[in-house]
Amino acid sequence: MRTLTVDLGARSYPIYIGGDLLSDRGLWARHLAAKQVMVVTNDTVAPLYLDSVLANLSDKQVETVILPDGEQYKTLDSAAWIWDRLIHARFSRNACLIALGGGVIGDLGGFAAACYQRGIPFVQAPTTLLAQVDSSVGGKTGVNHALGKNMIGAFYQPLAVIADTSSLTTLPDRELSAGLAEVIKYGLIRDAAFFGWIEANIDALLRRDPTAVGWAIERSCRNKAEVVTADEHESGVRATLNLGHTFGHAIETGAGYGVYLHGEAVAIGTCIAADLSVRLGRLDPVSAARIRELLQRARLPIRLNWELSPLRMLELMAVDKKNVDGRLRLILLQAIGEATLPLEIDGETVRATLEHCLAAA
Amino acid sequence: MRTLTVDLGARSYPIYIGGDLLSDRGLWARHLAAKQVMVVTNDTVAPLYLDSVLANLSDKQVETVILPDGEQYKTLDSAAWIWDRLIHARFSRNACLIALGGGVIGDLGGFAAACYQRGIPFVQAPTTLLAQVDSSVGGKTGVNHALGKNMIGAFYQPLAVIADTSSLTTLPDRELSAGLAEVIKYGLIRDAAFFGWIEANIDALLRRDPTAVGWAIERSCRNKAEVVTADEHESGVRATLNLGHTFGHAIETGAGYGVYLHGEAVAIGTCIAADLSVRLGRLDPVSAARIRELLQRARLPIRLNWELSPLRMLELMAVDKKNVDGRLRLILLQAIGEATLPLEIDGETVRATLEHCLAAA
Repeated sequence: MRTLTVDLGARSYPIYIGGDLLSDRGLWARHLAAKQVMVVTNDTVAPLYLDSVLANLSDKQVETVILPDGEQYKTLDSAAWIWDRLIHARFSRNACLIALGGGVIGDLGGFAAACYQRGIPFVQAPTTLLAQVDSSVGGKTGVNHALGKNMIGAFYQPLAVIADTSSLTTLPDRELSAGLAEVIKYGLIRDAAFFGWIEANIDALLRRDPTAVGWAIERSCRNKAEVVTADEHESGVRATLNLGHTFGHAIETGAGYGVYLHGEAVAIGTCIAADLSVRLGRLDPVSAARIRELLQRARLPIRLNWELSPLRMLELMAVDKKNVDGRLRLILLQAIGEATLPLEIDGETVRATLEHCLAAA
Repeated sequence: MRTLTVDLGARSYPIYIGGDLLSDRGLWARHLAAKQVMVVTNDTVAPLYLDSVLANLSDKQVETVILPDGEQYKTLDSAAWIWDRLIHARFSRNACLIALGGGVIGDLGGFAAACYQRGIPFVQAPTTLLAQVDSSVGGKTGVNHALGKNMIGAFYQPLAVIADTSSLTTLPDRELSAGLAEVIKYGLIRDAAFFGWIEANIDALLRRDPTAVGWAIERSCRNKAEVVTADEHESGVRATLNLGHTFGHAIETGAGYGVYLHGEAVAIGTCIAADLSVRLGRLDPVSAARIRELLQRARLPIRLNWELSPLRMLELMAVDKKNVDGRLRLILLQAIGEATLPLEIDGETVRATLEHCLAAA
C-alpha cells in the first residue's frame, strides 16, 4: 500500500493506493470513529464489493443506499433520496458516509455528505480507474442539471480516499479506457515525462498489469494532489485539470447523460482542445497528432459518432463554470506537459475548430 | 451607520447597521464587483423594498426571484427553482446573489449561493428583526425537510450583511416580537447586563424607538459575531446559540411549517429549557419566572396553544442536529447570562418537563 497526502492544513487527508484495501479492517477502523455509517453505492458495484466493505462495519449502525448505475442518476433527486434515508434513520452529524463506486457515486455521495446537517464526514472508496485517479481526490462534489454538468455542488474534502486497485479487475474495458483519458490528461497538462511513460506502457495498462496500473494511479494522484494543494477552490491553476472538459461536458449534456462515459467525452474534448491550440499557434501539429494517437491506442473515441452543430455545441458550452461574465474560457496546450488558461480566445478560431472537429467522419 | 466585523480570517465580513442602507448606492457598490446579480426575495418584501435595491444595480445584468412568503417555502424545491433560474440566465460563478428578506430568504438564498457552481458570492440584506439580529450573521444556510428544520444546508459566509433598520417600520407586530425572542436569547446565554437592559427597555423596543432598536440589534450582532468567530462550525460554544431551539424546531415541525413563526416557537422552547434547567437544579426558579415574564412582555407565546404529547415531542426532537449517536443534547441555563451544553441529561426529568410544559393550559 502506498500513501499520498492532500495537504490542505486542517483538512488534509490521506490517499491509500493498493490491493485488497476494501477488506482491510484496520485501515477502515483508522478513519471510522462514527457509530452510524451510511454506504452509498450502485447496483453494479454492490454485488461485487458491498459485502467486503460491510464486513468492516459489523460494530456500527449501518444504512445502505444502492442507486442505479449511470451518470443520468447523478441528480438532485438522488441526493434528496440519500438525505431522506439519513433523516429517517436518525443519523446525526457525527455519522459517516462512505461513497463506494465510480465518479458518479463519489460526486453524488460527497455532495450528500457536504449538505446533510451542513456537513458530515465522508470517505471516498473509488472502484473505477477514473475515480481513483481523478474524481475521488480534491473535494469537488456535485450533481448534474439538465442544462449542465456539476452545476450544483460543493467543495468538500473527504476524511480519506481508499483506492483499492484490486477492484479494477472487474472493471469493464470501456471504463478502463475512460479512466485512461484522465491519466493521459495529467501528462498533457503538467507532466511530459509521465506522458512519455504512458506511451511506452499503454499496452501494459490495457492488459491491467498491476505494477503499471498501480504506478499510473500513484503518479496521477500525486499530480492531482499537488494541483489541489496549490489551488483548492479553483481560482487559478486548478482549472487546468479541466483540459478538454468544457467540450466534454457539452458533449455529455448534448448527447444525454449516460450515452458517453465521462472519460470518453473528455477524450474527444481533449482532441478538440489540441486542434484549437494548434490553430491558435500555441501547440505544434506533431504533438497534436501524438495526443490523438495515444488516445486511440487507449481505445478511446477521438471524434463524435453523431452530428452536432457547432452552434449547438457553443450553446452547450455557454454554461461552463470557467466562463466569466458570459465570456468563454478554455484550457489550451502550449506543449505536451504544459497547459494554459488564456483570458481571451478568438471566437472565429473556436468556430473553425468546431466546424472541423464536429464534421461527419 | 455602525459597522461590526465577523472575524473569520480570509472569510471575514462586515455587518452594516443603520437607516436607509438598502438605498445606499455607495455601500452596495463596495461589495458588488459582479456584473451579474440575482436578487432573491419574497412577495411580502418585494413590493416594499425591491425597487430600492434594484436602483443600485442599474449597471448590472439582474435577475429577480420572488418566492411566496413563509417558512413552508424554505425547501429544496425552492432552492432548485433558484438554481434553474441561475442556469437559464447563464450566470457564472462570478455572479452575486442578494438575499433580501427575513430568515427564510436568507437561509434559502445563502444555501442556493453556497451550492450554485460550488459557491458564488452573496450578500445578506435582512429586513426583519429576527434576520438582522440572528440568521443573517454567521453563515448558517439551509432548507427544511418534512422531518426536520434546516436538515440540508451548508456553512457558507456572505460577503457582507446590510441590515437596514428602516425596514423594521413596515414589520408586522408579530414579526417584531418574534425577533425579540432571539434578542432576549443573547442576554440569556452570555450577556446578563443586556438581559437587564432589555427588561428596562422592552416598551421602547415594542414601540420601535429607533435608538433602542438600533442598540438591541448592534448588541445582538456583537454577541453573535463573537460566538461565530470563536466556533464557526459549531463544534462547541456556538451550540449555545440554539437555546430553546431543539424544542422550538420540534414545535415548528410538529405544528407544520408556517403555523408558528420561528421566534415564537423559540420563545416557547426557551420556557421549556428554563423549566428543565430548574428541574435539574441548575437554574433558580426566580430567574425562570423572570424569563417567562420578559417573553410575555415581548408579546410572545410561552406555551403551546394546542395539544402535543410528550412522546411525539421527543420523536420530533430526535432528529435535532446537536444529538450525538442517538443521544439527545440540549442547551441549559445555569443563570441568566450563562448557558451550558451538558453531555448527558436525565431522560426522566426531560419527560417530566414536557408533561408539565405541554399540558393543556
